[in-house]
Amino acid sequence: MARWEPGARERLVVAAVDLFVEQGYDATTVAQIADRAGVTKSTFFRHFPDKRELLVAGQETLSGLLADGITTAPVEAAPLAAVAAGLERACAEMGPANRELGPRLKAAVAASAELRERDALKSVGMAAAMTEALVGRGVPSTAAHLAAEMGVMAFKLGYARWADAAPDEAGGLWPHASTALEELRAAGAALG
Amino acid sequence: MARWEPGARERLVVAAVDLFVEQGYDATTVAQIADRAGVTKSTFFRHFPDKRELLVAGQETLSGLLADGITTAPVEAAPLAAVAAGLERACAEMGPANRELGPRLKAAVAASAELRERDALKSVGMAAAMTEALVGRGVPSTAAHLAAEMGVMAFKLGYARWADAAPDEAGGLWPHASTALEELRAAGAALG
Repeated sequence: MARWEPGARERLVVAAVDLFVEQGYDATTVAQIADRAGVTKSTFFRHFPDKRELLVAGQETLSGLLADGITTAPVEAAPLAAVAAGLERACAEMGPANRELGPRLKAAVAASAELRERDALKSVGMAAAMTEALVGRGVPSTAAHLAAEMGVMAFKLGYARWADAAPDEAGGLWPHASTALEELRAAGAALG
Repeated sequence: MARWEPGARERLVVAAVDLFVEQGYDATTVAQIADRAGVTKSTFFRHFPDKRELLVAGQETLSGLLADGITTAPVEAAPLAAVAAGLERACAEMGPANRELGPRLKAAVAASAELRERDALKSVGMAAAMTEALVGRGVPSTAAHLAAEMGVMAFKLGYARWADAAPDEAGGLWPHASTALEELRAAGAALG
């Protein structure tokens, strides 16, 4: 049996992102990532099929949390209130490690065309998961799509502000995402 | 000097999409695409750097038209009215050939992970171009982002309905996109 590696998954993610920033995504190998993380290559492959998937490993988890928060919101909640519940649920899982990883991840994504495309698809996946959960609550399709896109925008905007904040003032992700969603709601009402 | 190939670019796009649908994106080579279009491989490479770029060749043109329509909208136009002007401008360039290509392109994109990612990035590019044009009109950043995302959604939804309509009833793309934008506006007002 394979030896259990405490925290190997998290160490691999941090090591990979550091290497992507230092020497570029294309030039980084799975062997280098495993070495930096202090694990074997086979440990890498027990966690991720390849270096690209490593960067989006949290996507399905995130989409699942967003959808679950929407589905379990009170029956009487309006679409944007349900989206807020989804964001709150997902944000609750985001700790200081996520906050610290954000700017490094952003630099790695900005430097690689392949990662930019993967990142764009990730947003599409988040929006699709939220749309489906809203439609499941009886929200009409067009309204569900719009509310879900606002949820994605609020998550990204909130995350960016959270990552930019001074460590001792950053707090959790949820207040940032909540404020962003409220700004988007107010902006929507004033679009004409 | 290279011989001018009338319509070679369009023929290459149609040939490529047909081959992607018939035999898959990965299995299709540049040589096959050129052969099906009745041109040489070097003609292919005068138009496109590779087979992937071929599929999104219209992106920069489309983004440019959207942004231009927004920038030249009347000064007094509200953000969504400016987005509508951008959509109208871009839709004016979309003829029956675009309508016919739509469903085939969609099938090719659905069948390839690589194309799905490229397609997602295309949406990000359209939204970025419209956001920038709106900010250039003095629209605050958050409102500009939201209005631009609504523009992308209206374009996609309108395009899907246009492609699904019976040929003799489809008309132009603009009425479909305009209706979709109005639906999104109404949905936004009712999100709570």
